[in-house]
Amino acid sequence: MLTINETRFLNDLDALAQIGSTGDGGVSRPALSPQDVAGRDWFRQKVITEGFIFRQDGAGNLSAVLESDNPAAKTLLIGSHLDSVVNGGRFDGALGTLAALETLRTIRDSGRELPFHLEAISFTDEEGTLMGLMGSSALAGTLTQYELEHPRGGREALLVGMARVGINDASVLAAKRDPETTLGYMEVHIEQGTRLEESGTHIGVVTAIVGIRSRWLRINGAAAHAGTMPMDKRRDALWGAAAFVEKARALVMEHYTPGVVNVGRLSLEPGAFNIVPGVAELALEFRHGDAALLDEMEADLTAAAETCARDFGLELTITRLDDKAPAPMDAGLMAAIEGSAESLGLRHTRLMSFAGHDAQSTAQIVPSAMFFVPSVNGVSHNPAEYTIPADCVNGANVLLRAVLAVAG
Amino acid sequence: MLTINETRFLNDLDALAQIGSTGDGGVSRPALSPQDVAGRDWFRQKVITEGFIFRQDGAGNLSAVLESDNPAAKTLLIGSHLDSVVNGGRFDGALGTLAALETLRTIRDSGRELPFHLEAISFTDEEGTLMGLMGSSALAGTLTQYELEHPRGGREALLVGMARVGINDASVLAAKRDPETTLGYMEVHIEQGTRLEESGTHIGVVTAIVGIRSRWLRINGAAAHAGTMPMDKRRDALWGAAAFVEKARALVMEHYTPGVVNVGRLSLEPGAFNIVPGVAELALEFRHGDAALLDEMEADLTAAAETCARDFGLELTITRLDDKAPAPMDAGLMAAIEGSAESLGLRHTRLMSFAGHDAQSTAQIVPSAMFFVPSVNGVSHNPAEYTIPADCVNGANVLLRAVLAVAG
Repeated sequence: MLTINETRFLNDLDALAQIGSTGDGGVSRPALSPQDVAGRDWFRQKVITEGFIFRQDGAGNLSAVLESDNPAAKTLLIGSHLDSVVNGGRFDGALGTLAALETLRTIRDSGRELPFHLEAISFTDEEGTLMGLMGSSALAGTLTQYELEHPRGGREALLVGMARVGINDASVLAAKRDPETTLGYMEVHIEQGTRLEESGTHIGVVTAIVGIRSRWLRINGAAAHAGTMPMDKRRDALWGAAAFVEKARALVMEHYTPGVVNVGRLSLEPGAFNIVPGVAELALEFRHGDAALLDEMEADLTAAAETCARDFGLELTITRLDDKAPAPMDAGLMAAIEGSAESLGLRHTRLMSFAGHDAQSTAQIVPSAMFFVPSVNGVSHNPAEYTIPADCVNGANVLLRAVLAVAG
Repeated sequence: MLTINETRFLNDLDALAQIGSTGDGGVSRPALSPQDVAGRDWFRQKVITEGFIFRQDGAGNLSAVLESDNPAAKTLLIGSHLDSVVNGGRFDGALGTLAALETLRTIRDSGRELPFHLEAISFTDEEGTLMGLMGSSALAGTLTQYELEHPRGGREALLVGMARVGINDASVLAAKRDPETTLGYMEVHIEQGTRLEESGTHIGVVTAIVGIRSRWLRINGAAAHAGTMPMDKRRDALWGAAAFVEKARALVMEHYTPGVVNVGRLSLEPGAFNIVPGVAELALEFRHGDAALLDEMEADLTAAAETCARDFGLELTITRLDDKAPAPMDAGLMAAIEGSAESLGLRHTRLMSFAGHDAQSTAQIVPSAMFFVPSVNGVSHNPAEYTIPADCVNGANVLLRAVLAVAG
C-alpha cells in the first residue's frame, strides 16, 4: 500500500516552522507580510527543486502541479494555506499545504499515472489578516471589487501586501477558476478543538463548514442619573442586553447544539459609573452548519432580543453585518476520505467545522471536502498549538489515499 | 409674615441664567471655567452693590455676610453653588445660592436683628468638573492634598482653574472652617427627580444624602474561538457579567428600595465578534441613605457576583474605588424646615437625596439640612431643566422662614 515518506514530510514541516518563527514553537506569518513572503519563497523554491510545475495565480495563490499525461484532463485541487495569524501555530494551514505537496511527491515517485492533473495549492490570506479566504474566494469567483476596497485589515495594508507579491485588484478578480476544468478540492487541517482528542479518534470528516452570521444589536433606553432616577422608572439598556445574553445562551444550547452563539463585544453609552446606560451595543455572531437551522436560530435570537427589549421598555435595532452560508461537503469525497481512513486502520467520525476554511469557498463551485486530525488540548492560533507527528502523518496518508481513491 | 421679594429674586435668577447661557434655556458654567468666573464676578458685584460683606475663602468659596450685632456670634451658613455641568440647567445650584442671597436681603430690609452671622455661600465646584464638592469638603476639612493632586478632571485643568480665581493647594487646604464658630448649614435645591411632582408636594425635606460606593468588578474566564469552542466548554466572562446585572437589579429592587444600583460601564476583552470574551469589567455603583443597609447591600451584591462567577467557572476580583458615607441630616434643622413649610401652607414630605450635595460635606462637621422643590419631569443636568417660578419662590420663602425659626 502506497504511503508517504514520513521523514521527508516531517522535515518539511520543521523547515517551514523556522520561517517567521516566534521562538517559542509558533510562527507569525500574517498574510503578505515579509514573513509570509519568505514562506512563499521557500515553498516556490521547494516546488521548483522537486521538479514540479510552479504557478502563482492573480490572487497570489501558489501551486505545485503534477500534470496528467492526458492534456485534456481536469484538475484535482488539494491544499491549504501558508499564512498564519500573528503569533500563531506551526500546523494551522502548513500541515495541509505540505501534506498536499508530499502527496504529489509520493505519487510522482511511485510512477503512478493519474487521470487528472493534481495541484497542491496554498491559498492567499486564509486567516483574515487582510480579508480572510481571499485567495480561495478569488478562485471561486465570489470575491468582489467592493470587498477588495473594504478589507478588514485596511485597504492600505492590502495594497502594500499585494504589491509585495506582484498582484493587484484586477489580477485578483481574474483568478477565477473554471469549474468545468476542476474536479474538486480536498484539504487536511488540524481540528483546533478537542472532539477528536476526547473521543480518541484519528480522523474527523467534515460534513459541513458552518455558516456564520454577524449582527450589531443596538438597544436604546434612556440615560439617566444613577442616583435620582428610581429603579422602577429606569430604561436601562444594559438590563435588556444582559437578559438577551442569558436567553441567547440557553436557547442555543437547548435547541441548536452543536450550533454556537457569541456576544464578543458589548459597549454602553454614555459609559460612566453614575449614569444609567442609555444605549447598549452588542456584537452578535452565531454559527450552524445547516442552512435551515441557521435561519431558525436567527429567528429565535431575534425574537429573544425583541422580548428582552420590550420587557424593559427599550427599543431594538438589528444591523446585518455579514452572512457566510454553510458549505456542505461533497458526499463522494467524504466517502473517499472515510474509505482511506479505514484502509489505514484509523478511527474516524463525522463532524461539523465551526471555523471557516478555504473549502467553504471552493464548495461554491466544485465538490469539496476536508478532514481534521487532532489538536493537542484543542489549542490553536497560539504558539502552543501542537499535533503529534503520528497524527500529521495520518493526515497526509489519508489525503494521499483519498486522491488515489478519486483516481479510481 | 415676612416673605421674600419675589420680583427681585426671580429677576436675579434670570440675570444669572444669561451668564454662560447655552442659548436654549440652559447654562454652561463648568467650575472655574471663564464662564464660571463670569458668574462669580456677577455674584461678587451683586453682593457688594447690595452692601453686604463679600468674602472669597482659600477654596474659592464666595460669600455674602450679614453680620450680627453680636461680634461673638456664631455663623449660620445657607447657600449652594454657582457652577453647572457642561450644558446644564439654570436652576441646579443657582436657585439655592440666590435664595440664600435673597434671604439675607429680606432680613436686612426687615431690620430684624439675628443672634448669628448669616452667610450666603456659593461652594466651588460642586458638580465635579474638576473634583466634585471641592469647596464644601475644603470647608469641612476633609479634602486632602492627595485628592487635589488626583482630581477627576485632571490636575492640569485644576491648576488652570485655580489660577483663574487666585487660589492654590495650600489656600484650599487652609479653608477649613472651625465647627465651633459655625451653627450649621441649610440649602434649598431642585429635586432632579419626580417624586415631588408626582405626589403634588411642594417641599421635600431630605432625611439623608445617600452614601455612594463604586467598585470595579473584573470577571476572568477564558478567551476562545467563538466557532470551535463548544458552548458547554466555554468560560465566557460575559455570561457571569450578564447574570450579575440581572441579579443585582432584582436584589436591590426587592430588598433595598429606595436604594439604587447601576452598572454604567461594561467592557469585554479581547472584544471581537469571533472571540469568546475572556474578561469582563463592570463599573458598579450603589447608593443608600442608611449606612447599615449600604453595608448589607454591598454584602449581598458581592455574594451575588461570586455566585454568578462560580456558576460559569469564572473568577471574580472586586476593586474598591470610592466610598462616600451617607450623611444624615440634622433633626432640628429638618423640623425648622417642616415648620416653615407648614407656616406657608405648603405640602411637604421627607425623602432621601440620591444625588450628592454640598450638605453632605458640611454634615461632617456641623448640623446640616437641605430640602428640594419640584423639577418639571425630573429633568436636570440638561438645558431643559425647569422649575416653575412659584416653586422657586416657595423654596426661597421656606429657607427664609427656616432661618428665622433657627433665630427663634
